[in-house]
Amino acid sequence: MTLTTGADLRAMRERKPLVHQITNYVVMNETANATLAIGALPVMAHAPQEVEEMASVAGALVLNIGTLSDHWIEAMLMAGRAANRAGAPIVLDPVGAGATTYRTATAERLLGELEIAVVRGNAAEIATLAGQEAEIRGVESVGAAASPELAQAAAKALGCVASVTGPVDHVSDGDRSYAVANGHPLLGAVSGTGCMSTAITGCFLAVRPEAPLEAAAEALVAFGVAAEDAAAEAKGPGTFHAALYDALAALDPGTLDSRYRVA
Amino acid sequence: MTLTTGADLRAMRERKPLVHQITNYVVMNETANATLAIGALPVMAHAPQEVEEMASVAGALVLNIGTLSDHWIEAMLMAGRAANRAGAPIVLDPVGAGATTYRTATAERLLGELEIAVVRGNAAEIATLAGQEAEIRGVESVGAAASPELAQAAAKALGCVASVTGPVDHVSDGDRSYAVANGHPLLGAVSGTGCMSTAITGCFLAVRPEAPLEAAAEALVAFGVAAEDAAAEAKGPGTFHAALYDALAALDPGTLDSRYRVA
Amino acid sequence: MTLTTGADLRAMRERKPLVHQITNYVVMNETANATLAIGALPVMAHAPQEVEEMASVAGALVLNIGTLSDHWIEAMLMAGRAANRAGAPIVLDPVGAGATTYRTATAERLLGELEIAVVRGNAAEIATLAGQEAEIRGVESVGAAASPELAQAAAKALGCVASVTGPVDHVSDGDRSYAVANGHPLLGAVSGTGCMSTAITGCFLAVRPEAPLEAAAEALVAFGVAAEDAAAEAKGPGTFHAALYDALAALDPGTLDSRYRVA
Repeated sequence: MTLTTGADLRAMRERKPLVHQITNYVVMNETANATLAIGALPVMAHAPQEVEEMASVAGALVLNIGTLSDHWIEAMLMAGRAANRAGAPIVLDPVGAGATTYRTATAERLLGELEIAVVRGNAAEIATLAGQEAEIRGVESVGAAASPELAQAAAKALGCVASVTGPVDHVSDGDRSYAVANGHPLLGAVSGTGCMSTAITGCFLAVRPEAPLEAAAEALVAFGVAAEDAAAEAKGPGTFHAALYDALAALDPGTLDSRYRVA
Repeated sequence: MTLTTGADLRAMRERKPLVHQITNYVVMNETANATLAIGALPVMAHAPQEVEEMASVAGALVLNIGTLSDHWIEAMLMAGRAANRAGAPIVLDPVGAGATTYRTATAERLLGELEIAVVRGNAAEIATLAGQEAEIRGVESVGAAASPELAQAAAKALGCVASVTGPVDHVSDGDRSYAVANGHPLLGAVSGTGCMSTAITGCFLAVRPEAPLEAAAEALVAFGVAAEDAAAEAKGPGTFHAALYDALAALDPGTLDSRYRVA
Repeated sequence: MTLTTGADLRAMRERKPLVHQITNYVVMNETANATLAIGALPVMAHAPQEVEEMASVAGALVLNIGTLSDHWIEAMLMAGRAANRAGAPIVLDPVGAGATTYRTATAERLLGELEIAVVRGNAAEIATLAGQEAEIRGVESVGAAASPELAQAAAKALGCVASVTGPVDHVSDGDRSYAVANGHPLLGAVSGTGCMSTAITGCFLAVRPEAPLEAAAEALVAFGVAAEDAAAEAKGPGTFHAALYDALAALDPGTLDSRYRVA
């Protein structure tokens, strides 16, 4: 298999898959808008009365533990089981795993009780879940950068695709791996860009559910290229943030594959 | 009666009515900013300890079920009863009615237990509540567009003004109707623009509570004209989103009526 | 002591302190982005299972009652006690104190049970807490402006630094006071800018915990200068909002002190 980011983006825009997101309060608007901008349809729903019904009609489910509380975890588990039953792939963003016991334990519980297709996080979050030493300050990785070794080890330890983002992103299923060097430092200056990359991973998973490794890597290529385009328009993090949605909407399927960089 | 959008916008900016909003997590910042930009004062409050006090001093109440859970429904009912007692008009946004049983039932319950002045939604949401067939994907209407017939039938079925937005908006009290063709396709590329139009409906209701049909139509004229102005400044959904607040703030009462388009 | 805003901003960007924020749904993204843009690291966490762990490693704690409910108050108290034990300064934003009994009582409870370093609010909120007459519409002060007398009286009454923002800001510890005239009217046209100024107060408190009066005043100088720069780029509240993050990130420690204006 190989990356076919342009073709999959074209398919996404034609099919407009529904991507159900149970995510944190800080980034709900941002991930909804990133999902819309790239060409899928977001829906946020977290009530126990409706998460199964919503997850069962979605093309993918995004779980993000950025602002956690117990009844949200229950909703994530209910939605996750419904997605698993319906065959819809799940991407997990373990925001702040390693920062508090509660976040680490919750990420582990979701990974243990659900069939997760992709876990997308920064180096510290993924290393924590893989049982390695890691340094995190709040939700920011301040230690080692993403590496192919970390992605591979995490994928093996967690039994799913590990998508580790950083200056260069590394995505692995434990066997095969992709490096994605697309992106821009301004992504680190805007809150929620990691969460956006997870939402966009959900969008590509909805289009290519049988190839979660490729879907996860393609999401980072598309998001990274959009970030590069947005940075060219920006004077700082605020105008970059606005330009990022413009750039996601303007992504050209015809040239996207040629812009993929591994280093 | 007739539309006097410019005069009512001028009155809004003079009086700065308080618009109490119990809305969803995704769009709270967006509807607050749209409310401020057009010239009213937003306040968000959902605790049972304070919703009655807040609703009773507000000029209008906005209820939006976009990210629902049971204790928020109770807060909406408490606030709604207080608004009804105080004579403050209520606008309901039944986000996702038709998508899950929970949302449909909640919208019906709010319509049943409260005196709602205006229900503002997309064609699928309004058709669902009017007892018609409808196709919705998440919170997006993917079937038939808004029509004068749907608005009229919904208004009769629900006993309130029905404001159905789409490429052309249709607003009806079951007897008289307005079509509003103002707007721009970029509104569909930004999450929460429907919710913003509901918030702005609340702003106009606060100024013209005795004429909910006209208030609802005027809100869509003003919002649509602002969208047209914003689109002229935008390179895509992100810069459109920022320009939309600029355009709302820059709306000119003196020329607004001349820009109203019915087709 | 004196204001050393430039040096403290430089120190902030070197140390990147973690600023734990328990804030309202409307502005979470905005305060996170303001914190990141100026150079600190935000983290949002409100679950009882993790607030103590998070607060105890943070450089400062921000408490904001803008969208209140009972379990959030408990989380604020737990986090506040942990911050007090760890010696991390707390800034409180009493959003809407005076507007409802619940908000006033909650702000008083937090001030009573926690050791608060700085309370940052508009004139009506601070006057309410100081036991004076005040007029508030929703969360907007519509009566008297901030004054040195109000700041001083509130600081004495509350036993902490009072930071009262308005056209001219006044900050006092009951003894010494600073006036800050930096800022721009467009701040009043964007929802959450008061909350941002509180978050930035937390950032400066993390750098200068031993001098809360100076930290609070420096935060308003930095935020006000950024607002002036942003306004020069803006066409209205939407583009101002985006430019504000650009301007915060572009603040120049070398010239910041020379731009401080007292009138």
